[in-house]
Amino acid sequence: MEIAQAATPLPIATIAERLGIDPDKIEPYGRFKAKIPLRVLGSLPPRRQGRLILMTAVSPTPAGEGKTTTTVGLGDALTRLGEKAMLCLREPALGPVFGMKGGAAGGGYAQVIPMEDINLHFTGDFSAIASASNLLAAMIDNHIFHGNALGIDQRRITWRRVLDINDRALRQIVTGLGGVSNGFPAEGGFDIVPASEVMAVFCLATSLADLKERLGRIVVAQTLDKRPVTAADLGAHGAMTALLRDALSPNLVQTMEHTPAFVHGGPFANIAHGTNTVIATHSALRLADWVVTEAGFGADLGAEKYFDIVCRDAGLRPACAVVVTTVRAMKYHGGVAVEDLPDVDVDAVRGGLVNLERHVATMRDVFGQKVVVAINHRAEDAPEEVAAIVEACVRLGVPAVEARHFAEGGAGAEELARVVMRVAGDNAPTEPTYGYPLTDSLLGKLRAVATRVYGASDVSASSAVRAKIRRLEADGFGGLPICVAKTQYSFSTDPKLRGAPEGHVVDVREVRLSAGADFVVMICGTIMTMPGLPARPSAEAIDVDEDGEIVGLF
Amino acid sequence: MEIAQAATPLPIATIAERLGIDPDKIEPYGRFKAKIPLRVLGSLPPRRQGRLILMTAVSPTPAGEGKTTTTVGLGDALTRLGEKAMLCLREPALGPVFGMKGGAAGGGYAQVIPMEDINLHFTGDFSAIASASNLLAAMIDNHIFHGNALGIDQRRITWRRVLDINDRALRQIVTGLGGVSNGFPAEGGFDIVPASEVMAVFCLATSLADLKERLGRIVVAQTLDKRPVTAADLGAHGAMTALLRDALSPNLVQTMEHTPAFVHGGPFANIAHGTNTVIATHSALRLADWVVTEAGFGADLGAEKYFDIVCRDAGLRPACAVVVTTVRAMKYHGGVAVEDLPDVDVDAVRGGLVNLERHVATMRDVFGQKVVVAINHRAEDAPEEVAAIVEACVRLGVPAVEARHFAEGGAGAEELARVVMRVAGDNAPTEPTYGYPLTDSLLGKLRAVATRVYGASDVSASSAVRAKIRRLEADGFGGLPICVAKTQYSFSTDPKLRGAPEGHVVDVREVRLSAGADFVVMICGTIMTMPGLPARPSAEAIDVDEDGEIVGLF
Repeated sequence: MEIAQAATPLPIATIAERLGIDPDKIEPYGRFKAKIPLRVLGSLPPRRQGRLILMTAVSPTPAGEGKTTTTVGLGDALTRLGEKAMLCLREPALGPVFGMKGGAAGGGYAQVIPMEDINLHFTGDFSAIASASNLLAAMIDNHIFHGNALGIDQRRITWRRVLDINDRALRQIVTGLGGVSNGFPAEGGFDIVPASEVMAVFCLATSLADLKERLGRIVVAQTLDKRPVTAADLGAHGAMTALLRDALSPNLVQTMEHTPAFVHGGPFANIAHGTNTVIATHSALRLADWVVTEAGFGADLGAEKYFDIVCRDAGLRPACAVVVTTVRAMKYHGGVAVEDLPDVDVDAVRGGLVNLERHVATMRDVFGQKVVVAINHRAEDAPEEVAAIVEACVRLGVPAVEARHFAEGGAGAEELARVVMRVAGDNAPTEPTYGYPLTDSLLGKLRAVATRVYGASDVSASSAVRAKIRRLEADGFGGLPICVAKTQYSFSTDPKLRGAPEGHVVDVREVRLSAGADFVVMICGTIMTMPGLPARPSAEAIDVDEDGEIVGLF
Repeated sequence: MEIAQAATPLPIATIAERLGIDPDKIEPYGRFKAKIPLRVLGSLPPRRQGRLILMTAVSPTPAGEGKTTTTVGLGDALTRLGEKAMLCLREPALGPVFGMKGGAAGGGYAQVIPMEDINLHFTGDFSAIASASNLLAAMIDNHIFHGNALGIDQRRITWRRVLDINDRALRQIVTGLGGVSNGFPAEGGFDIVPASEVMAVFCLATSLADLKERLGRIVVAQTLDKRPVTAADLGAHGAMTALLRDALSPNLVQTMEHTPAFVHGGPFANIAHGTNTVIATHSALRLADWVVTEAGFGADLGAEKYFDIVCRDAGLRPACAVVVTTVRAMKYHGGVAVEDLPDVDVDAVRGGLVNLERHVATMRDVFGQKVVVAINHRAEDAPEEVAAIVEACVRLGVPAVEARHFAEGGAGAEELARVVMRVAGDNAPTEPTYGYPLTDSLLGKLRAVATRVYGASDVSASSAVRAKIRRLEADGFGGLPICVAKTQYSFSTDPKLRGAPEGHVVDVREVRLSAGADFVVMICGTIMTMPGLPARPSAEAIDVDEDGEIVGLF
């Protein structure tokens, strides 16, 4: 945090100008953040489309492997090499900042700034998404209160409220108590904002009109005769679009080395697709020659969804996928306990390589990507441990590069940038291959992902879940892609199964329709959509000092 | 709304420059809104302190008497007359925009712009206040979940969550259901954001340090042995201050005629004091020669609190109070049914004048103010109806001026401005007199307000309420001012008692401590802190058109 606060940003108007955007046409939010209006982006002169680099990772350790940090490092390195580069990143949620995590927008000398702003209110996008979600919730109950003309079955309302604070007490609640004027008592609950379908819709929309259309399609409940009730049925989608209008313009900020970055949208990577807005990525590809973006969690979750949901829907074609790993992660997958990870252990690294190897194979063989492995350097790494990873990549026929951007900034990732540029090449990228065709059945799609990406032998589902899947297919939603919500710590649904487990069975516990986002969520294992605060929340350390500076937000 | 959208605002940097603020030092939010950082305001060169004009009103009809509109009109008229004038207004809440009310920031040709922004997210202040309030709520339950070292009695948590959406189903809820990992089941509820004590604290704070100190004092619960538990006990006030840091800088916008306006903070005028931030008013008085501000509801509620709470606490000294009335309101108080109000009825006007007369007398005799009556013109007013009001004011020895700013902008309020300038005079205003001394008992303070301002004969309270009041006095809170929450439609606690009722008894139903805001709320009658949506919410009409413009927000 001190590093980020000590950085000297350029005026955001200068950053915009370097991208070829008239600085008088941006919407500044303070001096170092701006929204770029959609109409300004729409009127940009045509130029050669930039090349898209997807940053993904091995199955993470609990501390994470530094995917955002590496995204920033690669972007800065491309800039240092004289390339016109840009980043597309997710906005962090507010809730976790006060919990375990503190703030984050990269790390060390590879950060996006101003980090306090990005981690607190930023430009208000999350607040707008929360308001739109909660307005819809209020309009459902209000419709029932005023006579329920649509015949909504109050027991079958699936729409939940959201709040951007970690508050476990709101996971499961009873609303409408206190008598007639407060409505009908009902079960309900709050999720954190990134879990709202409005967030997923916001991130997949290609225009304001598409946003409104998608919002209108959101299914919030069933009627007493089990027909779906949508936001459009309630007349809520227009007001929701009005609430989101300004938010839909991408947020421009910069790295500590002045590489421009769109930080826009932040959907969960489990019950949603986990990548920044399509509008930001499409816009960045019109502004820069290289656009580096990241997908949430490991490649089994984030990258799979990036290809099967986002690229397929939005017509995106990555020129290259970078798989981030660390020596630490390889030891973890080699079976080392978390507290022993700092100790040098080449055998454990070798033991954990199966995890990296499977992710690399997925990127290459399932999704048809050119692959580079980035080894995110940590101070305690031993040269022989790094060498073990490089050797494995040589065997795989994939270039592996150690990158030291955390300690050195973009200079530490220049070799990575050169390799990425060489691998991505000059030709226009082809369409990726996908994990499954959309014509497969919903369960068939899950089976394809489970066997081809997770190394599973099969999928299972209770008869109730199978009935719900059949119902969705009968209602016309069978042609949607699936969005798997499972643990990020393992290829399987058991977070304790490290490495590259095989032969496991993926059980679908629950199925949820995201009709606005255009996917069907398959929940496999326990997924938390409202975190709690820990015994010593970081909120206790966050403060404002005598100079008005925010402290404790690390 | 069309009028506001058709207005051509000046760049906010130009507005700032005219006020003597270096345009490079403002924090722009888009091109027509800016926050003026506290350190910039603190470093302004000394100049003669401006004169403060308080805008208040008669007891309103359900549609309101146009107090904000008259505030804007007076400010624009002062500007037209070559004076350096500025406005200080409250920020509207988001929730009501989607309910009955639509958006509002003045009306007709007397509006503050950009009205869509001001009515939707504006600069994110309400969102920051909601986050700070809800973080505190989460930290209370989290403290109990992790062992309850402070010994909080979960049945005696008084802190409520907030949301800026009208959602009646959240008024009374049960939280923490679903098992051990979700905490302990408990009763709770949500208020709308303007009802949060954090909002009141935010509006009364004089600096970031004062804000933090006040937030720390907020009492959220009692322990099992009935000691108060504060936000500071939970270690929450530092993080809450961090969330509010940027919000505390006043928001600069402009009227349609380019008069600068701080629109900052928006507390309820019933369970809180109902005026914009003290920081905005103090700053405006250093920037302009005339500062027009408004207090919520009629003078019995808004102005009484403005003097007894805000002026006393913040050292503000109005040079003059303007009491807004309408022909319509006088007919209403004269007993005319709402549907018959457009009909000419001079006798009814005469019958309703008692309401205006009492408010004028209160301003002059209780609070020691110079008074001007502004008759906010409506198209259907008959000259003889207006004349009846003017005659009554002549008898009272108070100037009354008809103002036509709604239809004509500042030009329509020039006579009002001239009269206000003459009445305010050139001498530095003296300290107002108050409704009661702070040394009175809490119930004595209420009795003073009830008898001197409301025309009541006495106050009453159940033995439970009296016991609670004694407890507050024993705990050291007896020296605080009181904040009366009662209906705005009547001097009494019965909204149907129009005119100027006498001899009624004001019953205190409930007493609440606002230890951070430094007042004791006396709830007299039924007060709604979370509105509901009507059968046809305005949300159904709000939309975004093909050009990306927001429509239906009137």
